[in-house]
Amino acid sequence: MAKIAPRQPKGMRDFLPGEVLKREYVFGVVTDVFQTFGFEPIYTPVLEMLDTLLGKSGEEADKLIFYAQHPGGKEELALRYDLTVPLARYFAMHEHDLSMPFRRYHIAPVWRGDRPQKGRYREFVQCDVDIVGIENMAADAEVISLLATALDRLGFRDFTVHINNRKILTGIGIYAGVPDAQLGDLYRSIDKLDKIGLDGVRRELAASGIEDAVIGRMVELLALRDGGADALGQVRAQLSGVPVAVEGISELEQILDHLAAMGIPQERYAVDLAMVRGLGYYTGPVYETYITKPDNLGSVTGGGRYDELIGMFRKFSLPTTGSSLGIERIIDLMDLLNLYPPELTGTVVQAVVTVFGPEMQAPSLALANELRAAGIRTEAIMQPKRAIGKQVQYADRKGAAVVAFLGPDEFAQGVVGLKRLRDGREVRAPRADVARAVKDLLEKSG
Amino acid sequence: MAKIAPRQPKGMRDFLPGEVLKREYVFGVVTDVFQTFGFEPIYTPVLEMLDTLLGKSGEEADKLIFYAQHPGGKEELALRYDLTVPLARYFAMHEHDLSMPFRRYHIAPVWRGDRPQKGRYREFVQCDVDIVGIENMAADAEVISLLATALDRLGFRDFTVHINNRKILTGIGIYAGVPDAQLGDLYRSIDKLDKIGLDGVRRELAASGIEDAVIGRMVELLALRDGGADALGQVRAQLSGVPVAVEGISELEQILDHLAAMGIPQERYAVDLAMVRGLGYYTGPVYETYITKPDNLGSVTGGGRYDELIGMFRKFSLPTTGSSLGIERIIDLMDLLNLYPPELTGTVVQAVVTVFGPEMQAPSLALANELRAAGIRTEAIMQPKRAIGKQVQYADRKGAAVVAFLGPDEFAQGVVGLKRLRDGREVRAPRADVARAVKDLLEKSG
Repeated sequence: MAKIAPRQPKGMRDFLPGEVLKREYVFGVVTDVFQTFGFEPIYTPVLEMLDTLLGKSGEEADKLIFYAQHPGGKEELALRYDLTVPLARYFAMHEHDLSMPFRRYHIAPVWRGDRPQKGRYREFVQCDVDIVGIENMAADAEVISLLATALDRLGFRDFTVHINNRKILTGIGIYAGVPDAQLGDLYRSIDKLDKIGLDGVRRELAASGIEDAVIGRMVELLALRDGGADALGQVRAQLSGVPVAVEGISELEQILDHLAAMGIPQERYAVDLAMVRGLGYYTGPVYETYITKPDNLGSVTGGGRYDELIGMFRKFSLPTTGSSLGIERIIDLMDLLNLYPPELTGTVVQAVVTVFGPEMQAPSLALANELRAAGIRTEAIMQPKRAIGKQVQYADRKGAAVVAFLGPDEFAQGVVGLKRLRDGREVRAPRADVARAVKDLLEKSG
Repeated sequence: MAKIAPRQPKGMRDFLPGEVLKREYVFGVVTDVFQTFGFEPIYTPVLEMLDTLLGKSGEEADKLIFYAQHPGGKEELALRYDLTVPLARYFAMHEHDLSMPFRRYHIAPVWRGDRPQKGRYREFVQCDVDIVGIENMAADAEVISLLATALDRLGFRDFTVHINNRKILTGIGIYAGVPDAQLGDLYRSIDKLDKIGLDGVRRELAASGIEDAVIGRMVELLALRDGGADALGQVRAQLSGVPVAVEGISELEQILDHLAAMGIPQERYAVDLAMVRGLGYYTGPVYETYITKPDNLGSVTGGGRYDELIGMFRKFSLPTTGSSLGIERIIDLMDLLNLYPPELTGTVVQAVVTVFGPEMQAPSLALANELRAAGIRTEAIMQPKRAIGKQVQYADRKGAAVVAFLGPDEFAQGVVGLKRLRDGREVRAPRADVARAVKDLLEKSG
């Protein structure tokens, strides 16, 4: 058989067992929080009809999409590049089998042909949670509360959900006198505020031909971005003649009221009147979570209300709000900030059963099965000619806490030797009692 | 925006929330059993280099493979069609980071462009467990023990793992006088034994030009297929002059001895000297599990030893044994045989918090968060103008067990009204004690 050099596709990753266990832990915590908030899982196939995916995003997505087809197949297919278009398709096809409001989460890989770079991959997991069918700002407040709960449960201590409303930004533009056609430029420039500063925004807007006086009025309002009680009052007063801004401010205040009533600690959220969120489809509230300590780690969640999107495949749209958790970024930060619980040792095996020779293989397998029946994650060694010392070294490398010895003598006496590797503690347990004895050693390990 | 009719690709499935919960339950039980046996998870990307996948299977796979590429991409990619080739590639690339023996499981979707039909899909989940690096039959016995444990834990009561060894089949062929070049035909015909009977096999072999006397000798041995102690003794005696058969019988007996020593109940496994297992790559023991009651449900696991395959991408191969669980079939049977536990109700939500009007929305959200903090899966209603009766109906449709009421009166009195939907039992709980009161009602629901 001709040998082929083993390679993975560019930008795509294998994970070693210890890495998989950590990833599954994060997915598990997040899933548990989603369910506690009454969200339900959905599943959609990895491949979608190509026209389903191209419908929304047109040319930009076109370059990033992985196309797929099998030789006899007439269907033009593609790998999904997000979980939002599949949600819209799924909802349109199954709405009669779904209860409304439809609260779903979806944790699954997506594919994009981006240029691979540090922290950016061509296959990565997205993690979305959305409520379809609620216009009320209660839905947005609940999603924000959920995000804070999920990050808290993962062990993050210093983070803040930034909240804004697109309508306020639009209102600021109208108030200042930005022509309608240039509102898009406005969003794009403000989106860079943290990178280029207020002066940078000023320069960019001037370059796109917006008048100095207009820019001045706008920058004055954006300078109040932190939206503390005073700042928000000042913005409200100045924009009182701009209906869209009044609506946006009212929505923002409703969310703040709900969060306060829900007892979310104040340091967990903050108004940020200059926050845009890049994606074009947001229609009202937007929210994005930043790790505050250390403070250069960027955002770990991003979302908002997108009341038009769910109508892609059905006659009318429905109000929808939700968020992505940047789960790949979160997984990186879990390591960086050392947030994994100590019991997640990166290993599966708790106990290793050694083997004293070919004639002891079967009894040793039987012992391993007894420990397993008691719920102890056990590996049985199957190299009966290997020296016992080497077997113990293997158990140690494997991260096992306890090693079991069943030599001919022990077998004859109806006992099992046990050794805890951490401290070398040794115990001889009667065979009938061995699972309890191992559990005893394991508990004291933790 | 132009509307597109929502469609899924042919042979690929969405799953509704209740279905996802059931599937996740099955994956969870199986994962737990794998880990209890000391197996570790791996992850490989969905896309592989096309030449990685074509290496093994040549033209046959070629027709089934879904090819993939993005417009700017120079790499020829494809979606994996099984988890065995990715295992071989992964092992070759990461063996220095893996402990040996390498005991891994992998539960993940694969894609095949087969013609879709009942129970056969173009995207489906495979579930594989393998031990790389152990020549000893202890490994095969342990995999069989694991399969029996997994099916037992899922609730299957009547099933048998059929065990054979390819070397015995080869030995029977050699003993009977089948020419080497026709051993493939032999396997193919015997593989159909259950469908076409011994006479059918006889006819097929005659048609492929094997002499009558040869066929007679072979059929005589195959008739002893059940391998009871007497039958196995007879086969051993007759094949004592055929070294490969002697080796195969010895391997089979070692597995049986191990299984007996491990205390696996006798009805859980059976020798089947006529079992072939279609795949060409098995080199010794083969095993396949059948549901015995009802008896026409076919096989739910299939595996064996394939000592050559892991060498696809490295200089030398290593002894490897393992099995697939037919997890899609198992999921279908769980429904058919009604094996899901009663607590798996197909719904996430345990409690629904109603809302008595816009002014009560925030306090109701706060109440929902209190229940969630106590671990109760809770949905808060966000349609404050909907009649309470309708809200209770919604909770019932959603499968919630308990509904909470927080009207202005209850709020003023510091209590919450609770109603258990199953029996209409109503309780007024002091606000500080509400989570305990809900849990109380939930426990008595189970």
